Amino acid sequence: MAGVKPFKAMAITLFPDMFPGPLGLSLAGKAIEEGIWTLETVDIRDFASDKHRTADDSPFGGGAGMVIRPDVLEAAVAASHTSGTPLIYVTPRGRLLEQSRVRTLAAGSGMSIICGRYEGIDERFLEAREVEEVSLGDFVLSGGEPAAIALIDAVVRLLPGVVSKTKSLEDESFETGLLEYPHYTRPDTWGGREVPEVLKSGHHAKIQAWRRMRSEEITRERRPDLWARYKAGSIGVKK
Amino acid sequence: MAGVKPFKAMAITLFPDMFPGPLGLSLAGKAIEEGIWTLETVDIRDFASDKHRTADDSPFGGGAGMVIRPDVLEAAVAASHTSGTPLIYVTPRGRLLEQSRVRTLAAGSGMSIICGRYEGIDERFLEAREVEEVSLGDFVLSGGEPAAIALIDAVVRLLPGVVSKTKSLEDESFETGLLEYPHYTRPDTWGGREVPEVLKSGHHAKIQAWRRMRSEEITRERRPDLWARYKAGSIGVKK
Repeated sequence: MAGVKPFKAMAITLFPDMFPGPLGLSLAGKAIEEGIWTLETVDIRDFASDKHRTADDSPFGGGAGMVIRPDVLEAAVAASHTSGTPLIYVTPRGRLLEQSRVRTLAAGSGMSIICGRYEGIDERFLEAREVEEVSLGDFVLSGGEPAAIALIDAVVRLLPGVVSKTKSLEDESFETGLLEYPHYTRPDTWGGREVPEVLKSGHHAKIQAWRRMRSEEITRERRPDLWARYKAGSIGVKK
Repeated sequence: MAGVKPFKAMAITLFPDMFPGPLGLSLAGKAIEEGIWTLETVDIRDFASDKHRTADDSPFGGGAGMVIRPDVLEAAVAASHTSGTPLIYVTPRGRLLEQSRVRTLAAGSGMSIICGRYEGIDERFLEAREVEEVSLGDFVLSGGEPAAIALIDAVVRLLPGVVSKTKSLEDESFETGLLEYPHYTRPDTWGGREVPEVLKSGHHAKIQAWRRMRSEEITRERRPDLWARYKAGSIGVKK
């Protein structure tokens, strides 16, 4: 990767020790060693102005939980975020993450991800910085760190040189607008269950047709929403 | 928690060192120390039958990537999974995870999560074991581990004793069927931006009404799908 600047992922967090976590091993970990990307963390507390390193305070209007202060967070972001790259806050209030957004992020030079804890972060900060709010899905985590790890993992695997065979990216779920077809490997017979004959035929066109049919069936059964978009042709067309 | 059996989370993986990752710190980490839950990992390779500890093989029908063998995975699951508890495979082909499913999982005694890598796992295993396939969302990770960590985190925070104030669970996104209202904390004025007056009024009913209105606005703007379900009354009604 000589001459190519590594993709720069920055996690802005109250728990920097949660990183790299799973990102330090396997594909993502090897890609760090190879200089394809870098992972940095910023501890929000380092930007507190008191000796107790207080980054949060109680919410105006009452209620349980604490809210991260806008001034402390702004100082942390100002010190770490590369302007011109996406500044993301992972929160169930955000836009649902989709593979198309992951692809766009991977085409950029880096991203910063703010991880919330407690009740969340002060709304004025989100407005002032025009932060991109991204949600993994309709469930709630104890903080943004596990979501940030998942988002970074999704982006990193699309960086050039991380997954060696392009083929294995093209066939997978969402790249065709369909869920992926079923996979089979050895043994030939297992627990009384056979591998479908067509997959052993060596007939490439028939195998392709079978896989497409199974992808369509699975998508129709499990995800009527994706199936409707696929039929309408709104996704799955590659530029 | 004397007398209460800890919730048992089991991760079945090719990369046991990816755990506990972020689950070892903060809320989830403290809850392990307090005996509220346990996290165990099983290395699928330990159940391979050859000296190279081979757990995968090439796919029938061709294509890039490798597929986890059904026999090796079955041995790993048989040795580790507590029957009667959910056996989950995290995959983009699964049903989308929602907070209602998280609540049901947290009400149980444990769960086992199979983490795929490479192209996935042999379909016959999924059929034979009637595995529950769960997806975090419409994006692709390098493996199931980051998704398993997010799922476990979501479940663990709902276990009794993990989040101390019940209030902070009831108000949050999805528990009302709406996205959460905005939060504000000190300072009062920041970057020329004020905290909304109503939140400083001390008038509880007005604050509640304002928060509900903002929750509704945000949900309508950002998530027309959730908004439609909320209006139809299909979610947000607690038992």
